[in-house]
Amino acid sequence: MTIQPIYKNILIVGGGLIGSSLARACKEYGAASQVVIADKDAAVRSALRALDICDAVTAKAEPSDADLVILAVPPGAIVDTAKALLPQMQPGTTLTDVGSVKADIVENIAPHLPRTITFIGGHPIAGTEQSGPEAGFASLFTDRWCILTPDDAGSEAAKTLKAFWLALGSRVAFMDAKHHDLVLATTSHLPHLIAYALVGTATDMETVTRGEVVKYSAGGFRDFTRIAASDPVMWRDVFLQNKDAVLDVLGRYIEDLTALKKAVRWGDGETLLKEFTKTRDIRNRIIDAGQDSAAPNFGRDVLGEKTED
Amino acid sequence: MTIQPIYKNILIVGGGLIGSSLARACKEYGAASQVVIADKDAAVRSALRALDICDAVTAKAEPSDADLVILAVPPGAIVDTAKALLPQMQPGTTLTDVGSVKADIVENIAPHLPRTITFIGGHPIAGTEQSGPEAGFASLFTDRWCILTPDDAGSEAAKTLKAFWLALGSRVAFMDAKHHDLVLATTSHLPHLIAYALVGTATDMETVTRGEVVKYSAGGFRDFTRIAASDPVMWRDVFLQNKDAVLDVLGRYIEDLTALKKAVRWGDGETLLKEFTKTRDIRNRIIDAGQDSAAPNFGRDVLGEKTED
Repeated sequence: MTIQPIYKNILIVGGGLIGSSLARACKEYGAASQVVIADKDAAVRSALRALDICDAVTAKAEPSDADLVILAVPPGAIVDTAKALLPQMQPGTTLTDVGSVKADIVENIAPHLPRTITFIGGHPIAGTEQSGPEAGFASLFTDRWCILTPDDAGSEAAKTLKAFWLALGSRVAFMDAKHHDLVLATTSHLPHLIAYALVGTATDMETVTRGEVVKYSAGGFRDFTRIAASDPVMWRDVFLQNKDAVLDVLGRYIEDLTALKKAVRWGDGETLLKEFTKTRDIRNRIIDAGQDSAAPNFGRDVLGEKTED
Repeated sequence: MTIQPIYKNILIVGGGLIGSSLARACKEYGAASQVVIADKDAAVRSALRALDICDAVTAKAEPSDADLVILAVPPGAIVDTAKALLPQMQPGTTLTDVGSVKADIVENIAPHLPRTITFIGGHPIAGTEQSGPEAGFASLFTDRWCILTPDDAGSEAAKTLKAFWLALGSRVAFMDAKHHDLVLATTSHLPHLIAYALVGTATDMETVTRGEVVKYSAGGFRDFTRIAASDPVMWRDVFLQNKDAVLDVLGRYIEDLTALKKAVRWGDGETLLKEFTKTRDIRNRIIDAGQDSAAPNFGRDVLGEKTED
């Protein structure tokens, strides 16, 4: 699928998993005439050049020619990067980001924003547990939701940025930044914290060896290790920037887990069965919504052919 | 791969995901001359007959001709089923099961065991979130570990049962029943409890709609819904039968989660980064051990081809 370029010159700052996937997707789907990636890490730059996925790779971000600047650096570096680049940007340019937290970023960029530049917070709900430019791929955003938090959803800048994400294969939703943070605390940040904690617990048992944890991980544990292998710097920043919403949903979660613990302690099979039954429906809804594979075990375990039935 | 049949007549009691996969695997890999499945549920029997994966399907289990009887009923029904069948079994027969908990089952079957019958607890660390005879497949046990808890690991019965699981493509470990329960509480039972709790929390928020939870589930939440879609009856039984080990690891987990909560509350980025960094290694070890796919996102999200790089 090739379409009219949405932007002439896109500058992507940060060439990791997301930044490099954006560059690939821009080229694959023809969403931009020219794509430049800036990254301050020399190893990342040389990897990007070897991959040959964009028109230029630079050490320093030069935003003066860009009509769209995308900040794809770790969440904790977004505000400072924006402050450094804003004075060099030409009037009419749109600035956006891909950070997993929005309110903190939007609030801290706002005071530095000239009236001639539009900042629209962005967050593609897409990624993998891998990091770095080699881990990226063009279809990363296909069928995934991208949340944008424009001040004015009816503005040309917001409509154009929406068209850009649609061109990459994403679905797009406009949302208030604070509400975004609460939704994502629930569907992303809390799941990651839970997974990091479980992997920590399981690998620190004095009665069960790490070798046993590895060997018998197919019973459920291995799923959590995928999430807990995600980029540590990015996730540190997420929890520092979205503290209030994370503490809110984490408090509710510990209450619910404690109720299950009590049911286990008292041998309350009725409560366990009730709780375990009501959770099946949401899985079906996620599959119906095209947000996960219907294949058992995500399809990873069906080796060779099935029997002829 | 076809080998000499290990057993002449296998009776599988319970024709769900595991029982029907066992029947398929026995046929596919030639591990038994004849396989009969008994199931008290008429709908399961007619599904099994339509699938045509075994030599006979019966309502009542008739163990008198079998040299191996496998109990593939929910964990809570295993002891009663064993007690009912033992008096009809011929001397020299081996009785085994596939339950996710071992000590409770082994201890409660022991008093009813004639000296002429060998009971060996068994647990294949394999399965999917789906249930029922149609969900089974022959390669379910391939490269997965099966834990056996024989009283005498050097006995002919133990060696033969090990050969049987090897013939199905499994790896086999002998283990003490109590230690099995602690290991699996860590790698399987706790992960399931955590996932059931999270799905419950996320779908009961008054500030985030279920529709939002579904749409933005790709941020991590969807992984948990797969595990939380597992068979509720089986999992109720697991928690009732493995209470002590589950409460032990759950207590440790809540401590670790509370420590992370404190780090979030105090904005302690150093602790967060340290904890998030040490969890990456175990993922690589699980992949190296052949217990999970190395593909990002379990391979489910790479749609279409990558760019030509």
